[in-house]
Amino acid sequence: MTDPTETAFPEQREGEERLCFDPLERVDAQLRFIGRIETPWQRGECPKNVTRARETGQGARVVLEPGFVQGLTGLEVGQGILLFYWMHQARRDLITQRPRHHETARGTFALRSPNRVNPISLAAVRVTSLDLEVGVIGIDAIDCFDGTPLLDIKPSAPAVDVLPEL
Amino acid sequence: MTDPTETAFPEQREGEERLCFDPLERVDAQLRFIGRIETPWQRGECPKNVTRARETGQGARVVLEPGFVQGLTGLEVGQGILLFYWMHQARRDLITQRPRHHETARGTFALRSPNRVNPISLAAVRVTSLDLEVGVIGIDAIDCFDGTPLLDIKPSAPAVDVLPEL
Repeated sequence: MTDPTETAFPEQREGEERLCFDPLERVDAQLRFIGRIETPWQRGECPKNVTRARETGQGARVVLEPGFVQGLTGLEVGQGILLFYWMHQARRDLITQRPRHHETARGTFALRSPNRVNPISLAAVRVTSLDLEVGVIGIDAIDCFDGTPLLDIKPSAPAVDVLPEL
Repeated sequence: MTDPTETAFPEQREGEERLCFDPLERVDAQLRFIGRIETPWQRGECPKNVTRARETGQGARVVLEPGFVQGLTGLEVGQGILLFYWMHQARRDLITQRPRHHETARGTFALRSPNRVNPISLAAVRVTSLDLEVGVIGIDAIDCFDGTPLLDIKPSAPAVDVLPEL
């Protein structure tokens, strides 16, 4: 599929295709951000995954909006948690993509690219400090931009979060 | 906090508290469902996690909407994938909860309960069959209700999806 407007999007690479409709022509559910993630990372300098972020030795902070602070009751320092966040700088219109290190394009759902119909991401991190009054969680590391909106926090449960070996 | 309307919600348990505002008074982002998950489970008979679902030996199917089928290109049978889905039967107003097996209430973000401000869930599953024409993925198991809306599919990456041991 060739697209006459392709040159308007310099980040579009050969083999990449856009949805031929606006996925938000139908809105099925609505999200409320519950806080923000404060990190050392801006666009262009963000580690490529949470393991790489951990290797930098730089921690991060999760800051809840006041109305949601009570929801942290029962969390503990040292615990593993899953953070669900919204990749607010991502594109939502690409259905195939060709990352720089790939020779051919693949479907968005066969890639970990931030650009997706619903740009939700997940990180398994460790709680390093906890202020239950103010609603601030220190975490060991994360690979998202400073100011990334937070959607949810769950205790991690490795026994069910990980696929068993065949 | 006592609540005069508590008796109107029989599922509310002692120690559970509701948000004192509607979290959707401010809508921060919008979701588009990309398909549905077909499972053997109705409310009241659903396994409590994906490990238990796997133990039943019953598989499930992910059925994409036609517009999103191309996004599966590159997925393979046998591969591990993460499914992000929307728990459409969940409540969004509880900020503390007391599950049946807990003696005291805890914050929603310290629990794996389906009832949460943004009821997004995650399952790590294995692809058992794949129809890239129709957009149907067979999976080994999942613990969600039949008809659950699908938000996203990503290849699993155990090296980054799992928190390293201390």
